[in-house]
Amino acid sequence: MTDLQISRSVRPRPILDIAEQLGLQADEVSTFGINKAKISLRVLNRLKARPLGRYVLVTAINPTPLGEGKTTTSIGLAMGLSRLGKRAAVTLRQPSLGPVFGIKGGGTGGGRAQVLPMEEINLHFTGDAHAVAASHNLLSAFLDNHLFHGNECAFDIERIAWPRTMGVSDRALRQVMVGEKAQQHGSQFVITEASEIMAILALASSQVDLRQRLGRTMVGLKQSGAVGTAEELGCAGAMAVLLKDALLPNLVQTLEGTPAFVHAGPFGNIAHGNCSILSDAVALRCADYVVTEAGFGSDLGAEKFFNIKCRVSGFKPAAAVVVATLRALKLHGSGGVAKVGAPLPSGLTGPNMPALEKGFANLEQHIANARIHGIPVVVAVNAFKDDVPAELEWVRNRSREVGAIDAAVSTHWADGGRGAELLADAVVRAVEQPANFTHLYDVNWPIRKKIETIATKMYGAAGVSFEATADRQIDAAESLGFGRMPVCMAKTPLSLSHDPALKGRPTGFTVPIKELRILAGAGFVTAVCSGIQLMPGLPKKPAGERVDLDPVSGEIVGLS
Amino acid sequence: MTDLQISRSVRPRPILDIAEQLGLQADEVSTFGINKAKISLRVLNRLKARPLGRYVLVTAINPTPLGEGKTTTSIGLAMGLSRLGKRAAVTLRQPSLGPVFGIKGGGTGGGRAQVLPMEEINLHFTGDAHAVAASHNLLSAFLDNHLFHGNECAFDIERIAWPRTMGVSDRALRQVMVGEKAQQHGSQFVITEASEIMAILALASSQVDLRQRLGRTMVGLKQSGAVGTAEELGCAGAMAVLLKDALLPNLVQTLEGTPAFVHAGPFGNIAHGNCSILSDAVALRCADYVVTEAGFGSDLGAEKFFNIKCRVSGFKPAAAVVVATLRALKLHGSGGVAKVGAPLPSGLTGPNMPALEKGFANLEQHIANARIHGIPVVVAVNAFKDDVPAELEWVRNRSREVGAIDAAVSTHWADGGRGAELLADAVVRAVEQPANFTHLYDVNWPIRKKIETIATKMYGAAGVSFEATADRQIDAAESLGFGRMPVCMAKTPLSLSHDPALKGRPTGFTVPIKELRILAGAGFVTAVCSGIQLMPGLPKKPAGERVDLDPVSGEIVGLS
Repeated sequence: MTDLQISRSVRPRPILDIAEQLGLQADEVSTFGINKAKISLRVLNRLKARPLGRYVLVTAINPTPLGEGKTTTSIGLAMGLSRLGKRAAVTLRQPSLGPVFGIKGGGTGGGRAQVLPMEEINLHFTGDAHAVAASHNLLSAFLDNHLFHGNECAFDIERIAWPRTMGVSDRALRQVMVGEKAQQHGSQFVITEASEIMAILALASSQVDLRQRLGRTMVGLKQSGAVGTAEELGCAGAMAVLLKDALLPNLVQTLEGTPAFVHAGPFGNIAHGNCSILSDAVALRCADYVVTEAGFGSDLGAEKFFNIKCRVSGFKPAAAVVVATLRALKLHGSGGVAKVGAPLPSGLTGPNMPALEKGFANLEQHIANARIHGIPVVVAVNAFKDDVPAELEWVRNRSREVGAIDAAVSTHWADGGRGAELLADAVVRAVEQPANFTHLYDVNWPIRKKIETIATKMYGAAGVSFEATADRQIDAAESLGFGRMPVCMAKTPLSLSHDPALKGRPTGFTVPIKELRILAGAGFVTAVCSGIQLMPGLPKKPAGERVDLDPVSGEIVGLS
Repeated sequence: MTDLQISRSVRPRPILDIAEQLGLQADEVSTFGINKAKISLRVLNRLKARPLGRYVLVTAINPTPLGEGKTTTSIGLAMGLSRLGKRAAVTLRQPSLGPVFGIKGGGTGGGRAQVLPMEEINLHFTGDAHAVAASHNLLSAFLDNHLFHGNECAFDIERIAWPRTMGVSDRALRQVMVGEKAQQHGSQFVITEASEIMAILALASSQVDLRQRLGRTMVGLKQSGAVGTAEELGCAGAMAVLLKDALLPNLVQTLEGTPAFVHAGPFGNIAHGNCSILSDAVALRCADYVVTEAGFGSDLGAEKFFNIKCRVSGFKPAAAVVVATLRALKLHGSGGVAKVGAPLPSGLTGPNMPALEKGFANLEQHIANARIHGIPVVVAVNAFKDDVPAELEWVRNRSREVGAIDAAVSTHWADGGRGAELLADAVVRAVEQPANFTHLYDVNWPIRKKIETIATKMYGAAGVSFEATADRQIDAAESLGFGRMPVCMAKTPLSLSHDPALKGRPTGFTVPIKELRILAGAGFVTAVCSGIQLMPGLPKKPAGERVDLDPVSGEIVGLS
């Protein structure tokens, strides 16, 4: 059965039942149809005295282009915890229409480890991403309108720093010329999941905080050299109004009825890669175990979880789960090449102990990356049906040798929560271990030192080089007073390094930084590695080509 | 009280009650919160034997920039009909974020004649406009991606005809350069309410029809001269999937609990200006009187209602209501100038019989414009509290003299449905009159003849001139086989002519056409008058500057 067929074969429980199971009151739940709801932030005040649940981060090794099953593992783990009698919830990012119609497809899990309703979550869901784009582009329009009507604030047209955004992968919008006559200037579109407004939505702690962050958002520099903001343009209030409902966490459920929050969708490679703080906050007040996923490997989403998201929220993770597959470990050990749309070579799918042994080094770095933040690590080996049992066992043992508290084989994709019980049991034990969560760097360090620390400690780099533009932008950011913010790295997910071709655990490389962007409202600076684009392109045969409406049933086909 | 305060002072009935009142079954209604719902198209099949209700079009004279109160009159009339014991519903377009944050403000009526929930309908509502934009821009991305990956279909890059779209008023996006290197080309953004996809949503008669229209959508010409379509690009299925829920009519209610359908939002000046055929279809099967509004004056929305919308749907209007205000009639009679944001001069607001007599000619043309389509006309004088009773009475009498069946003064803004009872009574009598609805032109006529007929008959023009580009485009459209479609005129709403400065009932003018666009999926061609832009700009002080969240209550303020 396809994911869509499995999804449709399950009759979901009314979302009001799921909410009740979490202890939410009817007046805190606003339903969208029978399967989706938004949760009022009033619940945070009502439950403020309730102890927070255990916060479990799910991360991964550097994935193949097919992914490691991090979303399915997160969902499976929450279902497994539920089967062990724990009050569990999972928090995920909302999928992006870019990948849904591009290369990757949807982001609601797969097999027996999915969140429901699959189609709606993968498409418009409750409209949050559209609201982000509308809010973002309203500011773009206000800014250009200000230039058009006389530029009273005296913006420097050469130093406009606010892009536009679009919720699709559209390569042709990377560099555009907009405006007319004296107001004409170069501009960019970033995908909505890389928009600063998406980051603000994901990091805001309240409606008031959202409003303030929007006001602080920097749109460019003035001729005086001073920072121009959304507040000055009179746009921040309207932007907040557009995000009023989007700010509320979305509640859905897994195939087995476990509560699932799906809220905000910053990408893991080119943005900060984590679901909203508010969804985690609600989940942590309602559930005893909250499983949250960060995008891509520990070099990307997890690092930003530890050093951006948790720094803002103050929540401390109790453990990390690092997801790996045998095939990806073999890929890191030169077992073969994975191409989207082509069958995997037998060097990856069949027995290949030499490649596994060699590629394990990648996992070793990711285990260390979580441990350096002071928390226990459980490795989840996401198993396929033809995986060799001895290889799985070897990975479990090696993982413990290099510092994981435990390692469990998980078959949630095929078996749902039942297949994740061993993993859930390992996690329950791990969160009882002493933990001393710490950030990787002092946020007051100079920007270059923070980037170098991330690159050397988390990626294993020999150092960092800065292109002239980046150097200038870093100096400018520091002199403008934006030096004391955390850094969001924009980097390939396919390697620990900046170079997707470098597999395993490369050493001796220098990470090149081409650009530094100031996201004053989000509260971080983004350091963009050379070659990285904030607007993806579509492949030659986009996934959207297979998606259609069945002419007879009227149902969606081809969504995956 | 502000509109927002009035809106909040009323406790809406559960939308399921409103649906039940219309005879809808629970499984045909999908709720969004407690105040909004989408209606399944299954109802059309279940009720196909039920006679259609009486279909009443509400149009207006050429408005002041403040509007004539056409939306409030439509809402008030439906409430008034309800008070007379009729089973009535109103169908409206969804407001656009462009005007909401630009000049005009929201589009949910005002005073005691509003639809609820005001804030949500004016903002994201059920996400339909965002779905339209996503569907539109996916096709843009697929097209440029096709060029990038080798242009297998051999599109002529100089004859790409598919714009992008954005749901805000953003003047800087009127003409842009997109793409890189050999794929770079000029492009445009149109506001979402002028997108062909919005027109398709509004004109589709079923999901299958939607899918077919999307497939026929023309994206440009190939080097061979042949038409390239969305179907060929493999995008039409995904576009339809993005519109699957947007296609379903939205049900809300008036302040007095009258059923209101708010669905699709093509602008009246630069698009075809009418709510969806499907919302009218559902309303006509459920209610005995369906009041529907068309954008701007009878020269714009009503003409396109008669000759585009009704031609597609086959529904026949039983009567037209032409809305006028004393102040606008005086404006047409040189009584003074109306500027947005400035108080109206006393020549418009105070007694001014000479200006009224002179300006009445504008109303006379609009009455004739409806009558030429074979249906009876009722004039609604939308009264303000300081209007001179003798002037109101004079307009009533003159209206009957020039061909209106009746004319009623309506005070729905101040008094709700009670204030519209006289109007409702006049409409009930009007729809009993013999009607012989006819189109203005034969759709098989040459394009130029159709445009000339609209201009001379509906606008009172002496003729039409075609710029060289338009001439070439008309010839091309006809040779490509698109000559036998209705014409959608894009023209200023502020005058019967193409020139906003020509008030009253101008004569002797020649309408200049600068461009002809082929909307093959929507099934019409758009003739754009010189000076008209398909992407509006914002004023110097946009309405959005006043919109904010109250820092204490968290509620929206400043939305109007």
